[in-house]
Amino acid sequence: MKNAIDNLIEKIKKTNNPTVMGLDPRYEMIPEYIRKKYDKTLKGVASCIVEFNKKLIDAICDVIPAVKPQIAFYEMYGIEGMKAFEETCKYAKEKELVVIADIKRGDIGTTAKAYSNAFLGKTLVGDKEESIYDVDFVTLNPYMGIDSIKPFLEDCKKYNKGVFILAKTSNPSSGDLQDMKLENGEEVYIKTAKLIEEWGKDFIGEYGYSSVSTVVGATYPKQLEEIRNVAKHSYFLIPGYGAQGGKATDIAYGFDKNKLGGIVNASRSLMYSYKSDLWKDKYTEEEFEKATLAEAIRMRDELNSAINK
Amino acid sequence: MKNAIDNLIEKIKKTNNPTVMGLDPRYEMIPEYIRKKYDKTLKGVASCIVEFNKKLIDAICDVIPAVKPQIAFYEMYGIEGMKAFEETCKYAKEKELVVIADIKRGDIGTTAKAYSNAFLGKTLVGDKEESIYDVDFVTLNPYMGIDSIKPFLEDCKKYNKGVFILAKTSNPSSGDLQDMKLENGEEVYIKTAKLIEEWGKDFIGEYGYSSVSTVVGATYPKQLEEIRNVAKHSYFLIPGYGAQGGKATDIAYGFDKNKLGGIVNASRSLMYSYKSDLWKDKYTEEEFEKATLAEAIRMRDELNSAINK
Repeated sequence: MKNAIDNLIEKIKKTNNPTVMGLDPRYEMIPEYIRKKYDKTLKGVASCIVEFNKKLIDAICDVIPAVKPQIAFYEMYGIEGMKAFEETCKYAKEKELVVIADIKRGDIGTTAKAYSNAFLGKTLVGDKEESIYDVDFVTLNPYMGIDSIKPFLEDCKKYNKGVFILAKTSNPSSGDLQDMKLENGEEVYIKTAKLIEEWGKDFIGEYGYSSVSTVVGATYPKQLEEIRNVAKHSYFLIPGYGAQGGKATDIAYGFDKNKLGGIVNASRSLMYSYKSDLWKDKYTEEEFEKATLAEAIRMRDELNSAINK
Repeated sequence: MKNAIDNLIEKIKKTNNPTVMGLDPRYEMIPEYIRKKYDKTLKGVASCIVEFNKKLIDAICDVIPAVKPQIAFYEMYGIEGMKAFEETCKYAKEKELVVIADIKRGDIGTTAKAYSNAFLGKTLVGDKEESIYDVDFVTLNPYMGIDSIKPFLEDCKKYNKGVFILAKTSNPSSGDLQDMKLENGEEVYIKTAKLIEEWGKDFIGEYGYSSVSTVVGATYPKQLEEIRNVAKHSYFLIPGYGAQGGKATDIAYGFDKNKLGGIVNASRSLMYSYKSDLWKDKYTEEEFEKATLAEAIRMRDELNSAINK
């Protein structure tokens, strides 16, 4: 049976596009014509976000294989925001997009199990099990070690899901902990990448990649290359492209001769491309979907040209 | 002005009790007589949890200074679970308990800001700012460095809040990353504790402790002692007591001559003490509040006797 990473890879091959669109709603960046349809209340803002997200998903669902909602941008609107998160995940799945919930959780075993119930597995409600968010992948934080990962791995096996675990993140201060040198000369991010490779060894699919894979920022190309050398089976989730400064050429080393090996996230540069220097003169805010689609195609071609060896 | 850690310390002094009660609801552990009042649906389970939590809070609010809801145990019930989380935090605050939301978040700056809006600060909704969960403290994960902490620190300053950042966690595999030796001979948890001490230096209150403090597991007494030596201003949030195996004598080194320096979490051993070997023969399930109160007093006395130097 194909596993979660096989399904993602096949979707990437079908669209010929190693892009995941981040869905990080920022109310003030949503086109005015949508915003003015809704009350300025938590409920109104959440409804506005759902409409915007659905239009974005409709615009790119034939061109981009996956979306990555960042849960913080929903949680900040409380219960109403979480409803918008739930509806966004559901709609993306209906449109056959792979859904990666960017939650970066990490906690002791019993707590990790509760999180995994919420996102990958099922929750026992009275006598029967219910799916809650039921996404395809989540992101995890490795700081607490294998206990904090294992309940998710059990659900990966049971429900055919996957995880991406942080090794080297895209943010400027990622080095505070991740770049510390260990006594054997390795950095923490290398040791972490090796642990993830080890944790993922039972989840390797048909293409030689594991459903238990790694997050590596586009903003650190040297480290990305080093991690590739110790994590041969890891499919990289690569944030940091676009607004954060990562370039297509920076991520090429993550990919193999079949153009597989990673999926590159862009959030702001896709969602709000109608405001970007590149597209703002060509499309109005009412045509924001066209701007997003144009940017998705431009990004796809740029990535493909960079990873074509 | 007193800061967040001063407020917590004064509450600890007033109750003469360095305990925080974890609020990690497990449906199957809630007394049958409460469970059978509600439907076995997500909504029913969430209502059942709220009733149970409120009764627990009523039982201990004069004896225990703080509660720590672990958000995973609410998130696993989806939207209804998050409503129960919200109601639990609100009720605990009404009862003048200090509320520590155990969320262990860590993400890039813009995302960290969104999380901080949700838990410590405010969210801009249209033209006005609204409080969402508005708790007193959150727990954070340091793996992504200062960028991922800074937005919370800004809200700590602005709204008089605090954070506890993971250094050495209580779980068995916490050593996978945290115990790695750096090239200078220090472990990762020591380096992390030093970073937290540095990040917290502008938040030191009247008692010499910082509102930006550290999580250190009761299950690792040697490491707790080492961390105390490099993090003099850190008020320790100490999980792992009770069900996880940590003992009162294990945490004594975290405390100063005034019996200040830490707050010890117990979740299962307090919430479900009516099922414990110690109390199950004395109290029925209908008297679970009495069992929890009795255990709270027993734990308080045990801790106080261990930390009295």
